[in-house]
Amino acid sequence: MSFAAVDQYLAEHTAQFEADLCELLRIPSVSADSAFKADVRRAGEWVANQFRQLKFATQLHETPGHPIVTAQSPFVPGAPTVLVYGHYDVQPPDPLGEWITPPFEPTIRGGNLYARGATDDKGQMLTHVKSAEAWVRSGTPLPVNLKYLIEGEEEVGSENLEAFIEQHKKELAADVVVISDTCQFGPGQPAITYGLRGIAYFELRLRGPKQDLHSGTFGGAVTNPANTLAKLVAALKDDQGRIQVPGFYDDVVPLTDRERQEFARLKFQEAEFMKQLGVSALTGEAGYTTLERRWARPTCDVNGLTSGYQGEGAKTVLPAKASAKFSFRLVPNQDPHQIAVSLEQMLRKLCPPGIELELIAFHGAPGVVVPLESPHVSAAARAIEHGFGVAPVYIREGGSIPVVGTFRKLLGIDTLLLGWGLDDDNTHSPNEKFCLADYHRGIKASARLWQEIGSRS
Amino acid sequence: MSFAAVDQYLAEHTAQFEADLCELLRIPSVSADSAFKADVRRAGEWVANQFRQLKFATQLHETPGHPIVTAQSPFVPGAPTVLVYGHYDVQPPDPLGEWITPPFEPTIRGGNLYARGATDDKGQMLTHVKSAEAWVRSGTPLPVNLKYLIEGEEEVGSENLEAFIEQHKKELAADVVVISDTCQFGPGQPAITYGLRGIAYFELRLRGPKQDLHSGTFGGAVTNPANTLAKLVAALKDDQGRIQVPGFYDDVVPLTDRERQEFARLKFQEAEFMKQLGVSALTGEAGYTTLERRWARPTCDVNGLTSGYQGEGAKTVLPAKASAKFSFRLVPNQDPHQIAVSLEQMLRKLCPPGIELELIAFHGAPGVVVPLESPHVSAAARAIEHGFGVAPVYIREGGSIPVVGTFRKLLGIDTLLLGWGLDDDNTHSPNEKFCLADYHRGIKASARLWQEIGSRS
Repeated sequence: MSFAAVDQYLAEHTAQFEADLCELLRIPSVSADSAFKADVRRAGEWVANQFRQLKFATQLHETPGHPIVTAQSPFVPGAPTVLVYGHYDVQPPDPLGEWITPPFEPTIRGGNLYARGATDDKGQMLTHVKSAEAWVRSGTPLPVNLKYLIEGEEEVGSENLEAFIEQHKKELAADVVVISDTCQFGPGQPAITYGLRGIAYFELRLRGPKQDLHSGTFGGAVTNPANTLAKLVAALKDDQGRIQVPGFYDDVVPLTDRERQEFARLKFQEAEFMKQLGVSALTGEAGYTTLERRWARPTCDVNGLTSGYQGEGAKTVLPAKASAKFSFRLVPNQDPHQIAVSLEQMLRKLCPPGIELELIAFHGAPGVVVPLESPHVSAAARAIEHGFGVAPVYIREGGSIPVVGTFRKLLGIDTLLLGWGLDDDNTHSPNEKFCLADYHRGIKASARLWQEIGSRS
Repeated sequence: MSFAAVDQYLAEHTAQFEADLCELLRIPSVSADSAFKADVRRAGEWVANQFRQLKFATQLHETPGHPIVTAQSPFVPGAPTVLVYGHYDVQPPDPLGEWITPPFEPTIRGGNLYARGATDDKGQMLTHVKSAEAWVRSGTPLPVNLKYLIEGEEEVGSENLEAFIEQHKKELAADVVVISDTCQFGPGQPAITYGLRGIAYFELRLRGPKQDLHSGTFGGAVTNPANTLAKLVAALKDDQGRIQVPGFYDDVVPLTDRERQEFARLKFQEAEFMKQLGVSALTGEAGYTTLERRWARPTCDVNGLTSGYQGEGAKTVLPAKASAKFSFRLVPNQDPHQIAVSLEQMLRKLCPPGIELELIAFHGAPGVVVPLESPHVSAAARAIEHGFGVAPVYIREGGSIPVVGTFRKLLGIDTLLLGWGLDDDNTHSPNEKFCLADYHRGIKASARLWQEIGSRS
């Protein structure tokens, strides 16, 4: 079987794979800081060169910001197409003083490679390049069409990505997307993240009197916008943690029995979790476990409150205005727009006379989920078991990865989130690291993934 | 009758009274600014000299801050004793550019005297000095014992006053206190302010996780202190504006029928009031009018809210902490301490697990009211009618004047608040003024007050 040659190539090139990653990590491609603009481009060029060496059709696309790299393997008629998304830019390394070894001088300690971008996302992204290299250099015909979309602005909000995808729909068309920019469930326990929550984010602004008033002279007779804000925000959720916006749960896709069982089997230590967060108890929607509440149930969290006097001591002011930022995490198939409409109706109904209400809806995104029964999920599971020697668990993630929704919306396809990282990799913090064994396991799983997806056709 | 000589003296000395006030107003006794420290003292000395010229026993008492002036008229055995409180310090004049004429160059325009301190409180305070002068200089034996307590730190919180009163209880002992540092009900409508609300001010601090969390990864499973804050604050009041702290209304002295009738007779224009505040409607405790709500009913107003992200745009943070400042305005006989105890019990009961609650009680003060049936109130009413040519109305004030509570607590006596000012006198603002006609009417009313109180004995 031809795949043996691929695995053999992987086994024989671990040193080279590490050297290549270190080369990329030495380029300080900090997208947020214009002083590093040339370095960001250099990192993009470096990635493009990886593809050129494999004879993939490669382009470095200019954008108003940093370049986007695309590449495509030689066309294999009738084979499925996989789109790999990743990013070559990194977070700023500050605070520099807290790094044990410099952020752009990759250093191995205790089996981990330390450098800014080691896991987020240079190391993880590169696993899908090195896996392709193994197929190509071992002379094994790729059973899939591989497309790559590697951007340089992920750490600054991917400002130019959605327009790029929109303009290149045809070139990017694929059967499934693969992203490695997340985490395993725990050390030695790889995971497939098959669901993400969406979001609907709002700012509620209330205005009362035209200026702050003396709360003695006027208090009691003038509607207080800060009291009103508390009332409206409190009305969003009942004591059972159920959100009170009319129709909020109407379209919610409930957790399946299989999902609840999978979650229940996970070695999740609630006591450890509480200790990590520094809380003495957890609360949430009645009838659900902590993991279910975090991953697969919608929420309403206040993100910010502001009104009146916030300094030290006491000031007897009746504030002229009060505002709250709050957001709902959404699950499939909740519609952010419909929720915004219902929310505004509810708030206006509750708002007392004498208060002017403004509700600002920030960009919303729906939740996404890949059915566990999808053949791509099964293929990924087999590939991960091959690469890591252990079957993956199935998890969801409470946050949003906007590009996943974009792929769904613009290309109509699902994304496999195959995280090779670990929770304690210090992404966005000093001393970012990537476990080298996981790097190689990731490459091996990725190489196998092309086989598993290809063999389906 | 000997009082005619007093009135005659007043009539003959209006120019001198204005000149004296202008002299005091030219001293920039800004207590908040240490650059004016010597001027503050100079103003205190000026006031003390006024008393010395009347042969009153006068002292300038040093304090850790600015001096306190006391004076006492020659003892009249068997006569009642009146304690006059006032202050000779003034607010800073900023913003200077907005003054039409310089703040410390008193100028008459349209019957008003413009200067910082004109009404607050140099002008009003001086009415009670000039009234005594009229008795003394006209050779009319004072029918009361007059004591004066004139401080220089009112605009900076009267920090040294309470200790001073405590230490001089015996010297300050009196039957009633008189203060002119408030307003008439309207132009040409003098008022007796016979009640003040008290206050109980709190800061509620809630702490959840030890640091801000990502609201996607953790939201739904971790108790959010900002949501909790909204819930606790909202629970303080129901939709009828009734405060929900258990026992809150137990000790409230209800408005009497006479009070409600007096308030109802006042020419209060609700539409004008709303326009002034810039609100389209007023709300408050069900069953009470706007004046009743402002003056004589307890309230609960949020004074400040703070939590999480307060900048522009959206940040998906689950805040580690949230806090609210809020205060209750109290009416007689509510006890700030008892309310603090009941409030804390209520909040702890409502607070969900996973949240640490801290309630800070700032200095509280009970509400005060002088019974309308008090002979001192009747005496003041007759004196005002003599001075202003119109009977006063009876009003209360929603704010607190802490020294009134201090006199009640330490000396056991009521205070007559006889305001000669007007709502639009720009106290604490540029172009502060005092209507000269009211200055003279105030002196005349004050002179008559000594007669009215003295004749009671």
